[in-house]
Amino acid sequence: MPTTHAVIMAGGSGTRFWPASRKKRPKQFLPLADGTSLLEASVRRLAGICSPDRIWIVTNPVQARALPKVMPDFPREQILVEPEARDTAPCVALATAAIAAKDHDATMILLPADHLITPVDAFTVMLQRAVAIASDDKTLVTFGVVPDHPSTAYGYIECGERLDAAQPEAKKALRFREKPDLATAEHFVRSGDFLWNSGIFVWSVPAIRAAMAHGNPELGAAASAMLTAMQQNKKSAVTRAFRRAPKTSIDYAVMEKAQHVAVVRANVRWDDVGSFPALTAVGQTDAARNTSVLRGGARSVACESEGNIVYAEGKRTVALFGVKDLVVVAVGDAVMVCPKARAGDLKVLVSRIEHEGLHDLL
Amino acid sequence: MPTTHAVIMAGGSGTRFWPASRKKRPKQFLPLADGTSLLEASVRRLAGICSPDRIWIVTNPVQARALPKVMPDFPREQILVEPEARDTAPCVALATAAIAAKDHDATMILLPADHLITPVDAFTVMLQRAVAIASDDKTLVTFGVVPDHPSTAYGYIECGERLDAAQPEAKKALRFREKPDLATAEHFVRSGDFLWNSGIFVWSVPAIRAAMAHGNPELGAAASAMLTAMQQNKKSAVTRAFRRAPKTSIDYAVMEKAQHVAVVRANVRWDDVGSFPALTAVGQTDAARNTSVLRGGARSVACESEGNIVYAEGKRTVALFGVKDLVVVAVGDAVMVCPKARAGDLKVLVSRIEHEGLHDLL
Repeated sequence: MPTTHAVIMAGGSGTRFWPASRKKRPKQFLPLADGTSLLEASVRRLAGICSPDRIWIVTNPVQARALPKVMPDFPREQILVEPEARDTAPCVALATAAIAAKDHDATMILLPADHLITPVDAFTVMLQRAVAIASDDKTLVTFGVVPDHPSTAYGYIECGERLDAAQPEAKKALRFREKPDLATAEHFVRSGDFLWNSGIFVWSVPAIRAAMAHGNPELGAAASAMLTAMQQNKKSAVTRAFRRAPKTSIDYAVMEKAQHVAVVRANVRWDDVGSFPALTAVGQTDAARNTSVLRGGARSVACESEGNIVYAEGKRTVALFGVKDLVVVAVGDAVMVCPKARAGDLKVLVSRIEHEGLHDLL
Repeated sequence: MPTTHAVIMAGGSGTRFWPASRKKRPKQFLPLADGTSLLEASVRRLAGICSPDRIWIVTNPVQARALPKVMPDFPREQILVEPEARDTAPCVALATAAIAAKDHDATMILLPADHLITPVDAFTVMLQRAVAIASDDKTLVTFGVVPDHPSTAYGYIECGERLDAAQPEAKKALRFREKPDLATAEHFVRSGDFLWNSGIFVWSVPAIRAAMAHGNPELGAAASAMLTAMQQNKKSAVTRAFRRAPKTSIDYAVMEKAQHVAVVRANVRWDDVGSFPALTAVGQTDAARNTSVLRGGARSVACESEGNIVYAEGKRTVALFGVKDLVVVAVGDAVMVCPKARAGDLKVLVSRIEHEGLHDLL
């Protein structure tokens, strides 16, 4: 029976959570999961399926240095550092090489660091089902979330027939569709054949290596070179191979071209915590729909105010008076105010701050 | 020639500047006058008309204790402490007694601590003119500000005929009108006969003592008792007399009933800095009408935002994104956000904070 490894991809910066998130403290480090970080919650959530020495975090050099402070118990040898940001395909190749060097026939779970998923039991069952499907050493398993609205913020997976008549929740994945326009999204949701792409994958090492070689031979070659370099313990050769890998996404380079892709319906509550308004899933909400996420002794008071989101850390109080549908954030040396409707565009503000040379705030 | 004394009334709490203002740090302590406090600016503004040992501050016990920290150079023996809050009439009686104990025929200037008045030269000339009028030992002189809009936030003074054909700027004051409703305010402004009551007064000690005895004999008796107690250096007797004085305003108890009241037109720029939107007169305003008042290293960034007021102290940054006509305040342990249009009602928020038991924030 092959071993099961999990790889948590934690390279994102999360500018849509500024000023709570900064370069050295990305979204996945924020205490958004019942007071612990999304990253730590992602690790804990895997307890039922992987032993701790088979859980990996792939991240960038800045976050890799910050990680031991945030998660002192996480084993440092399980942290994989991407030499540079080259999208998800080289990242998957790196993780595959690291796991293959230990267990050439392992099963791999690949998942983002910054999602909220509950309940854990259902999540474990869902992964176990996928691990069983992936044991054929050829099927790449994805997870699809049933859309509750025609979102243009997620990619979609088109589902085909059942893999197995006895398993209604696992179907063939016919196509991957990137973030659609609203009309297309509405069509997808109406049809009932489309699920949101959760960004969680399960496959065996042999299956992903074959799919990389098939979908993008350059990527496949880079993955093999990384594996050889790791087996020879040559760090600089790993880095060189990584830098030679094509800068592209795993969806585009591999998933869209693979022949055996299954989609498992995710029977869990899933939230990618994309921007501040998503904190309604995390915080305390009062009768006037004001949600607050307060950490480290922070307090909030909402007077004649409704529908606002407050995020605050540290011994401070955020008081709202007569305001509606705002996001108000107070963390460290920064306060940020924007309408909820603009929270998804927060990168614009972050760019402005960068442009004004206020680099200490980033 | 009688000496001239000035009394700065600094007992207000300024809840409309919360959280910049707190109980121990009222509005007049805020660095709103070119980085110095309104109170200190009020003292400095009198340099051309009073010697420092004739400038008095009347305040409450809490602020009297805080004052030496904010203005270490101000002589402590010039600080008069109101034993309790009893509106302005007992406060004037106390100040009158203190001055009369030194100079029984002195001229007194009475003025609020929390107004911005520029330029100083014109202000000095205006006061000198009033001091000359008050030298008849019977006229109580007020200052009227030409209204630029039908404000319902100020009291009005109805002007009669000129005191002296040669002095067009000094007229008889016919009536005092408290804060009117909008229709009345519009009528006042249209008529051209009404000026805003600036809350600044000039009179001689004999004139105000006589006017108190005439307008409110109980008040007059309390003032005389305070004077006797001071001459005998009996502090507890001063306190007892103060507590016996009627709890009423000087406008109601004295000014409205006095027979010789003059109003001098204030040829100065006058701002009572009533609430946060008044900071447009104090701060830096950008092309999108965002005004910021930043002290102690604070910074602000306004991106796609207009018409906002930011007040911040300390090493922190307030960033606005896509917001309009808000007040955002970040001082010490508190952040406050409200629409500019609600800034005048901030007492409601402060009451709520008190009601919720968050007394450390007040």
